[in-house]
Formats: sequence, C-alpha cells, structure tokens
Amino acid sequence: MNFIKDDETAVFALGGLGEVGKNMYCVMHKDEIVITDAGAIFPEGDLMGIDYVIPDFTFLKQNENKIKGLFITHGHEDHIGAIPFLLQLVDIPNIYAPNQAVGLIRRKLEDRGIKYNNLHVYTEKDVFKYKYLTVEFFQTTHSIPDSHGMCIHTPNGNVVTTGDFKFDLTPIGPMANLHKMAKIGDEGVTLLMSDSTNAMSEGFSKSESKVDEALDELFSRHNSRIIIATFASNIYRLKHIVDTCKRHGRKICVFGRSMNNNIEISIEGGYIKHKDIFITPEEAKNYPSDKICLLCTGSQGEPLAALSRIAQGTFRQIKLRDDDVVVFSSSAIPGNAVSISRTINRLYLKGVTVYTNTSLSDIHTSGHGNQDELKLMLRLIKPTYFMPFHGEYRMLKTHADLAIECGMPKENTFILGNGDVLILKDGKVRQGGKVPAGDVYVDGNRIGDISNAVMKDRKIMANDGIIVVIANIDTKNAKLLANPSIITRGFVLVNDNIELLKKLENLSKDAINKVTKTGVNYSEIKAEIINSVSNYVNTHTGRKPIILPVIMDIKKDVKIG
Amino acid sequence: MNFIKDDETAVFALGGLGEVGKNMYCVMHKDEIVITDAGAIFPEGDLMGIDYVIPDFTFLKQNENKIKGLFITHGHEDHIGAIPFLLQLVDIPNIYAPNQAVGLIRRKLEDRGIKYNNLHVYTEKDVFKYKYLTVEFFQTTHSIPDSHGMCIHTPNGNVVTTGDFKFDLTPIGPMANLHKMAKIGDEGVTLLMSDSTNAMSEGFSKSESKVDEALDELFSRHNSRIIIATFASNIYRLKHIVDTCKRHGRKICVFGRSMNNNIEISIEGGYIKHKDIFITPEEAKNYPSDKICLLCTGSQGEPLAALSRIAQGTFRQIKLRDDDVVVFSSSAIPGNAVSISRTINRLYLKGVTVYTNTSLSDIHTSGHGNQDELKLMLRLIKPTYFMPFHGEYRMLKTHADLAIECGMPKENTFILGNGDVLILKDGKVRQGGKVPAGDVYVDGNRIGDISNAVMKDRKIMANDGIIVVIANIDTKNAKLLANPSIITRGFVLVNDNIELLKKLENLSKDAINKVTKTGVNYSEIKAEIINSVSNYVNTHTGRKPIILPVIMDIKKDVKIG
Repeated sequence: MNFIKDDETAVFALGGLGEVGKNMYCVMHKDEIVITDAGAIFPEGDLMGIDYVIPDFTFLKQNENKIKGLFITHGHEDHIGAIPFLLQLVDIPNIYAPNQAVGLIRRKLEDRGIKYNNLHVYTEKDVFKYKYLTVEFFQTTHSIPDSHGMCIHTPNGNVVTTGDFKFDLTPIGPMANLHKMAKIGDEGVTLLMSDSTNAMSEGFSKSESKVDEALDELFSRHNSRIIIATFASNIYRLKHIVDTCKRHGRKICVFGRSMNNNIEISIEGGYIKHKDIFITPEEAKNYPSDKICLLCTGSQGEPLAALSRIAQGTFRQIKLRDDDVVVFSSSAIPGNAVSISRTINRLYLKGVTVYTNTSLSDIHTSGHGNQDELKLMLRLIKPTYFMPFHGEYRMLKTHADLAIECGMPKENTFILGNGDVLILKDGKVRQGGKVPAGDVYVDGNRIGDISNAVMKDRKIMANDGIIVVIANIDTKNAKLLANPSIITRGFVLVNDNIELLKKLENLSKDAINKVTKTGVNYSEIKAEIINSVSNYVNTHTGRKPIILPVIMDIKKDVKIG
Repeated sequence: MNFIKDDETAVFALGGLGEVGKNMYCVMHKDEIVITDAGAIFPEGDLMGIDYVIPDFTFLKQNENKIKGLFITHGHEDHIGAIPFLLQLVDIPNIYAPNQAVGLIRRKLEDRGIKYNNLHVYTEKDVFKYKYLTVEFFQTTHSIPDSHGMCIHTPNGNVVTTGDFKFDLTPIGPMANLHKMAKIGDEGVTLLMSDSTNAMSEGFSKSESKVDEALDELFSRHNSRIIIATFASNIYRLKHIVDTCKRHGRKICVFGRSMNNNIEISIEGGYIKHKDIFITPEEAKNYPSDKICLLCTGSQGEPLAALSRIAQGTFRQIKLRDDDVVVFSSSAIPGNAVSISRTINRLYLKGVTVYTNTSLSDIHTSGHGNQDELKLMLRLIKPTYFMPFHGEYRMLKTHADLAIECGMPKENTFILGNGDVLILKDGKVRQGGKVPAGDVYVDGNRIGDISNAVMKDRKIMANDGIIVVIANIDTKNAKLLANPSIITRGFVLVNDNIELLKKLENLSKDAINKVTKTGVNYSEIKAEIINSVSNYVNTHTGRKPIILPVIMDIKKDVKIG
C-alpha cells in the first residue's frame, strides 16, 4: 500500500460494507495486521448453485507475514464462516475467539478435516499487545453468548469495532459492559465502526425477556405438543426455550444438524443447563403430548430442514397431528418469504395451529440494536470519526445520519465499500486508496473457481437450456461426414419436438455446407451454426438457450468447440 | 363427468385454489358451461425461465361444445392473463368483460397477433340467460375500475362469485353496489365463492382516499422532482396520482410499457382525465423540478423495469439528482424483497430521498378486503354453503374460519383444490369427483412443452453446469478412435482447471475401454462414462453437473447420447 506513509495506520473492510454478511475488517500499522472476523454469506434465494460467498483474501495473502492474529467478535456464520477457507489460503498465526465461538469454530474445522493448533479462547479481561497495535475487548449483548466489541489501540488513535450488538437491558445472559465502553470512550476514540443491521428501525429493540414472557404464556395456553422452529444460531432463544420447557415439565427433542451442534456446544460451554431435559425421538414416544416440545431447524422454510420435511410429511420420525402447535420464533430473512409461506401452507393443510411473528409479535426479537441503541453506542464511545459497517448501503447511510444527529460533522462520517482504505494519522482520519476486495464464490468444496462467465452460462441454462450441435468434418476435403447431431438439455420436451429438432439439424447442415465451400475454418463454422440455430430457435420458441457447436475431425484427432 | 347426475350442477376451479393467481372457475349444468375469468401467474422469483403459469385447459377442450361464454370480473392479469393461450387451444364462443377489461384484453390479443371477434363489453345491468344458467353482475370496489362480482343462477341454486374486492367506503371510483348484493342475498344464495387474498389481515382495509391524502401531503412537502413507482394495474392509484399532479401543477412523464398501456386504456375509457398533463421525456426537459412528476414501473425491483434502470443509471432518458424524491406507492410481493432492496440501496447510493410503505404506511393500501370486509360480504350474501377462493391454503382456511365465526356450520364450508368438484342438487352442496387441473408452463411463446424433466435439467445446470463427453468409436472393431473430448458449460473456469478436465478425459477413455473389450453397447458405454465422471467430479469438486456422453460412429452415421 504505497498510498499510506510508514507512520500512518490503515483501516479497511474485506467484507461487511454494502452487505449483511462476510464481515472482515483489518487494522494495519507498519508490519502489523490485526484482523477482526472472517465471515461468509449464504447467498439469498438462488445464486446458481453457490454455497457460500467469502471475502477476497488477496491482500492478506500478499501481506501474510504481517498478520498478528485473527480476532473473532462472536460465533455467528457471518463472522466465522470463512475461517476454513481462509486457513486453506493464508497462513494465520493465531485465532483468538470467545469461548462459545471457539467451540463452533473447532467443530467447523473438524467437519472439513482441517487441523489447526493455534485457536485460543480470549475473555473480556485479556489484552493483546504487539509492537504497535494493542487489542482489548468489551462484552456486548447479542443473540449468542460471549459477544464482544474490540478496541484496537494504534499509534495514530484508538479504533473501536462493535461486532454485532443490541443493548438488551434485561438480557437472558450477562449484561453488556457499559462501564468499560464508557471508559474506552472517555480515554478517547478516533474511529468507531458500528453494526448497522437495524439502522432502519426506530426506537429501542425488544428485550429477549419479552420473548421469554410470550413463550411462557404460549406454553401455559396449550396442552398439546409444541413444535418450535428458530434460528439455530440464536443461543439465548434456545436457552429460554429450554428453561420454559423445564418450568412447564416438558422434555425436548431436537431435530436438525445445526440445532444439535449449537445445543451440544452450548451445553459444553455451560450456556444451556438441564442436560437431562433432552430426549431422543425414540424416548419421546413414551411421553404424552403435553410433556413434549420439539425444537427444530427450518424457520426460513429451507427445503431440507427439519420443519419443512415435517410439514411435507417426509420426515420419518415425526408425523403431525391436528392438535399440534407450531411456533416460528423467528423473522423472515428477505428472500425467504416464498419458501416460508410454502411451509406455513403445508402446516395449515395438516390442520395444526401456527404462530409466527406476524400473528404474535412478541415471539421474536432481533439480536441487533435499533436506532436508539445505535445512538447510545455513539454517545458512549464518543468517536471523532465514524464508519458504519455491517449493512447494506441504505443502512450504512441511515446509520451515518444518526451519527450526524448526535452531533458528528458530516465530513467525519465515512460510508465506504469493501476494500476502501481509511488512513489514520495523529488522531485524524482521511480516505485514501484501495485494497483488492470482492465476492469469492464457494461451490461444493472449491474456492473461487466460479467466474462470472460460469455464472452467466448457468443462468442461461437455468432459463432456456442448452443445444449441443455435433458435426464430424473431413477437414482435408472440406466435407461434412454425416448429418450433424442435435442434443438438448433443459430446452424442450424432446418427444414433442421431433420436427423442431430435425429442422435444427438441417439448419446446422446448411450452415456448415455454406461456410465450408472454400475450406474449413472452425471458428467460422461455429459462428455460422450459432447464428443460424439461435435465430431460428429464438423466433420459433421465444427461447435463447446456449448453442454449443462441437466440430470434430477424427482423422486429425478431435477438435472441440 | 360421470360422477354427477344429469340434473345436478357442477362447480369447480381450474385455477385460484391454493394459490394467488390464475383464477378460473366453472359452473356446468347439462350441456352448458359458464366460465369466470382466465388468469395467469407470473412465477415468483426464479422458476427456471418460465414466463407464465396458466391453468390446464384439458377439461374445457374436451367439453368445448358446452361452453356458453367466458365472463371476466375485471382486467387484472390473474384474471385475464391466460386468455391468449386459452383462445389458441379452445373454441370460446364469446368473451364478456367490463369496459376497462375489454380494453386490456384487446391490447393483449393484438400484441400476440390473435384475431378474435367475439369480445363484448358488459355492464352491471346486463343479464345473460341460457337454457339453464343465467348470469348477472354486481359492482364491487377494487384497485381497477369496473370490477364485478357475478351471480350465476342454476336449476339447483344460485352461485355467487365475488371476483376481487374490498369494501372501500370512500372509494376513488364508484361505490360498490351494496344494495344489489343485499338483494341477491335476500333472494337466496346456495354457494358463495369469495376472495381470500387478505384473509390473514385483521380489521378493515384502508381506503384509497387515505392514500390520496398521503400523496397530497407528500407533494406539499417537496419542491423537488418526484418519481413514483406503483403497480401499473392499480388504475385508481394512477388516477389519483394524476389528480394530485393536476392540483399541484406538475406535468407527468410516464415510463414503462405496462404503465403506458394502462394509462392509455384508462384515458380511452374515461377513467383518467387531464390527458394534457402527460408530456414526453423530451418536453420534460423544459420544466423545472417542482413542475415534474415521473410515473414508472419497477415497484417490485424487476431488473428491466423503468425504476430499476433509473436506479442503476442505465436509463438513458433519466439521470437521478440528489434532491429527487422517489416514492414506492406499493407493497412488496413475497419473493421480491431482495430485488426491491437492491433497487432501494441503489437509490440511496444516488443520494435521493426514498419513501416506501414501511417508512410511510399511508402511501399504499391493498385492493383486497381484510377480515371484517370478508365477513361483511358473507353477511350480505348470506350463502348456505361457502367455498373460499383466490388464496393460498392458509388464506382459504382462515377465510373458512371467518364464515364459521359468522354462524355457518363447519360442514358447509369447502376448502378445496383446483379440479375438485362441488355438486349442487336442490339447494344442497356436496363434494364429489375431480376434473383435470394443474400448472401449465409457458416459456417464450410455447405453451406446455416444458415438462418436469426439462425443469429438472435446467435446475441441475443452474446449480452445477453440464459436462459433455464426446467419443468417436469404431463399432465394428470395438475401438475408440481418438481421445474423448470434454466440453463444459457452467461447471468450472476452464483455464484454471486444465488438469481436472484432462483427468475427466482419461477417466472417460478408461471407462470406454473397460466396457468395449467384448463389443460395443452404447447404453453400457454411456452408463460407465456417467458413473466414472460423476463420481470423480462429485468427490473432487462437490458438484453434481449433468454428464452428457455423446458416442458417435461416423462410419455408421451418427449416434447420439
């Protein structure tokens, strides 16, 4: 980075700006880099088979030797999901994470067969001092235990990053450390980076304790079997569901791999008590309806999740009964409305009673703070400069406006994109330069070998299919050796379209004959076939499939198109 | 239909039950069929390139000679969108529609080059008498002028179908004909079929007049350019936007084909006045910002609609300015949340002020009635039996519960699916039998040649691409003539995976050699290639593309795989 001077400090995001997900933020001074979080995004809806989107690690690879450590704020996927991929590509000397996150990361690495011996637990009291950079922590409230914000001391000023937070004043777990935040604020903060997820929502978010009350009231009202779907990552929700079941004398049966994982790790960490409350589906058969609660994945209508399969009737272990009560203790993530709605319709069809956060709003609350909580953070930390993070553009913009409302000059707020660099010098901040940043796609177990061209082909084939035209040519004599073959996939119903396919065969033949009169040029033949076939197909079917001509000459070995 | 007796009357839906869209309902007595509506659905999100979903017309084709007429309740796509396809497949002697709908249907047929001379306008006063069946109408309030419900008199009792409605007591257009509904109810109704779209929403829906007030207040507040996106089909909304502009001295520039169509037809029909208020984009350049309003499509974030292109900066005629005000006078249709959010982020990025129905709720209201309005309809019509229609299952179920709340015995309510038949006999209704019904896909200009197999191939290619393996074999000598060729689309980035592709080539070669030792069997070769290549690909990439082996023997002419 030749755009910053040797005595300046750089702060930038490799992910998390202009998006909700794949959080990754870096602070660099001379030969020291401290990284905060390494998150992934699960693509919303249908992103052509992509399993994860992760940050571009090019900059980190190029500056591998400067990395002091990766510090994790909490154990959610959008903060830890990219770790297995990062470790495959970049040498990370140490990862420090709070207890619950360490459990989740460890399991994630085991699942992928990655050995890594430098994963350590930190607590709020720990301080990491390097030559230039010093990292300390403050506890926050969020939907998972052990969530922390960080203060990174640099020679050019202190940088605070909040991680994800809300100010839950009656939390299920421990209270946020307001006093440490106040102390950090008092000592002087040059730059605050703060969670913008709920920047569009007015007021103060609802406490988890409200949800606890709503659940309790719901358990009092119903004597039948209760099935609860919620986010497996919402550990506090799981905790108070467990506590509610304990109070109401119900045993819990857990369905869904991520739900089981999170509960196991939470029991190990001591966040969830009453280990004896969990029973197997087999054991559940011995309990009457009013002594049972099923806790499952599928609150977003994910087709393969437990609740979706229960609703479809394809889940061997659970058959719905019409006095069942199904509770969605969750909200709809944008993009999932249609699949959630499909699941709810199936549940209605089985005659069960369904509660969602639209029919019973207290059944869910977000783990992220609303506008008044964001202002409270700004007031406690009292930064000179502000960069909203963790949000789409409109959230960042609205969050910056909140800072301005709280008295910050507009020119001290930075609404940036991934890769944009902030430069700190003697307590002043300016924008300057860029580092490589962008979306890297993971499909299956391969990182980044999906290009835009591949994605574009998938999109076309998704909409209109593919037509392969195969022709054998005798190059020397410029002669087509046999009629071309037409093979299609995802284009039309072959049996109903014999004539159309015959026509395409003839068009291809004519196209080849037309351009081979004076010799054989493979590119020319291919262009002519594509032109002729696609024109006809488009006019007669209104479709635009991929046309893939394959020209072969077995005498010259095989040529491919 | 041998399950109904000659003196019985059949009522059934070919579309509209268990879904919002493709409404089509039939009443049949002896050799007379009266059809209500012929709607289409635009698939939500990504349905593998499908443009429309329409009802299955098999039953109508088989009973073509019985059809007396198609009666249209109003001019929305989910009630008229299947007409061009219906006319291509089934002989429909007459279509009767209210004035505004006739304008829209006419244009729809012209666009597709379909000549049809039996499209007629009906008014509320018209009565159509056939030998057994008689059709009359009552005016309702909805978001498009000339919306009607119908009462179909049959020898076995009267059947009322509401079409889409709300009870807007301060409507922008004419009032619903409560008195005619009351009269029909008083005369006795055996079966009511009623709109369930908003059956999950409590209370009484907001009047369009409230939206009118909100718009007026918004126009008073802003002196800058105002850009409004709304549903092109919401004619009353367009009407009061025009009236508001007139009051505030603004000219209107219209963008988007469907918006232009609807406005032209509404002006022709006299529903929208002030024809002189509309100006071209060229003319707009001569007006200051506070004298201009842009009215455009794209309220759902559709990628090609006017507002989306304006937000992207790819719309030649309109460049955004940072004092522009953009109003989404609309709600999000489920499935569109992500694309709407993308558009809003882009608008924020340009610095414009954005209003949506979440930031300013009075900026939109639905055209469908809430629970209290549905109860009012039930109370006015006083049916003996009730079949909720126009809704997903949970809406139908909730609507049936409303009828039960209003005193109807549960066994008199029918929650059915498309194709299920109700049989009327002497004022009694029972369920019995089925007619063919289902989804027919239209892709491009071709009806129904997309099968589940084609859709499945498209889905696989969308997620993982395709690998074509081409091999030339000398069948007589059971010999591979050259190395097989591997061609992929949408699978991996070819340049980064030369080795992988070489490996697949060798695997294919081995597979062929393995099974050609004792002779050539094309199916066996293909199976072996698929097996070998897909195993390797799945293990090494985690992907499951289509493997398409093509075996050729040019000496025997071409064989395809």
